[in-house]
Amino acid sequence: MEFSSKLLENAVYEMSQLPGIGKRTALRLVLHLLRQPKNQTAQLVNALETLREDIKFCSNCHSISDTEICDICSNPARNKNIICVVEDIRDVMAIESTGQYRGLYHVLGGKISPLDGIGPQELTINSLVEKVKSGKVEELIFALSATMEGDTTNFYIYKQLEGIEVKTSTIARGIGVNDELEYADEVTLGRSILNRIPFENALKSS
Amino acid sequence: MEFSSKLLENAVYEMSQLPGIGKRTALRLVLHLLRQPKNQTAQLVNALETLREDIKFCSNCHSISDTEICDICSNPARNKNIICVVEDIRDVMAIESTGQYRGLYHVLGGKISPLDGIGPQELTINSLVEKVKSGKVEELIFALSATMEGDTTNFYIYKQLEGIEVKTSTIARGIGVNDELEYADEVTLGRSILNRIPFENALKSS
Repeated sequence: MEFSSKLLENAVYEMSQLPGIGKRTALRLVLHLLRQPKNQTAQLVNALETLREDIKFCSNCHSISDTEICDICSNPARNKNIICVVEDIRDVMAIESTGQYRGLYHVLGGKISPLDGIGPQELTINSLVEKVKSGKVEELIFALSATMEGDTTNFYIYKQLEGIEVKTSTIARGIGVNDELEYADEVTLGRSILNRIPFENALKSS
Repeated sequence: MEFSSKLLENAVYEMSQLPGIGKRTALRLVLHLLRQPKNQTAQLVNALETLREDIKFCSNCHSISDTEICDICSNPARNKNIICVVEDIRDVMAIESTGQYRGLYHVLGGKISPLDGIGPQELTINSLVEKVKSGKVEELIFALSATMEGDTTNFYIYKQLEGIEVKTSTIARGIGVNDELEYADEVTLGRSILNRIPFENALKSS
């Protein structure tokens, strides 16, 4: 792509550094901003700048927060003895939107993925292990993606906790509610048969 | 979507104002920036800010330029008697990449589209008509998208030029109807410039 303007080229380049944004899309987005009033760009720029400079991470669960301790961790109504281990804040938001969980979270910041250069040290695993060692945690719920990296991360944390008395569980894997059985992949369907639950329990949760 | 952080919510909101970026994608992009070093956000912010503040539009062809007169308009090797009328700079870039055209451009800034609130006054049509009236232009090549809005815009300009002696042509419709110009392959686009036909013929065949 040949640009007639260095300013334009630079803006397109920086925009295309974002994941899933190619050069063409970046150009479309940048030209859109040029057609809009200046204050739209100013607002975007300001929002990103403020976020990057002022953002805090909850010192307890490592989730994104505007305060030192996030709203969930500081809520007296939440059960502080159960911790749900997730990759990032999107998972917190997804689980919160179900309204089914009243415990706390622990945000790892990703999952172990040697190919992407992410080892245990890049995640908040030590902080989690320390928290469990402190003795107040009764149950740890692993809610990572059901991928090889997710399973690896679960297993790594599980090994770190050897000798510490804490209940561990993973969220159920199976066929999605309203999903047709015939479209499920074999691994998912296989797991959902192996991990079947008493029908009485299913009745209760529906 | 419920956010635990106002800063995050605001950044996601501003990002989702961009065309084709939904709330979920915006959140993914913003979280990506948070995981990267601060200077990546700084560079993006700086590039957008500088672009929006310092960008110039060529006073002759209205294309985006870092200088008062763009590189194409100031190039003595270009034929100043032929003007190719396009919607935006992406079309200039697309046509330039074919290497088939040695004239100048005139960037309209869009096409007439009443539904989007874009009338002739929002485009650089008056400037084009004045340019043609000045008498140095021998031929005008309409190279707008082959959509209803593009045809309307062509026809509007054509009517404005009644009584002025200037050859008008449109690029050949080797490009599929309803296809956007910027996505055409170079050979098709190059040929369609070489095989342009008089506008009167285009009127008959449409």
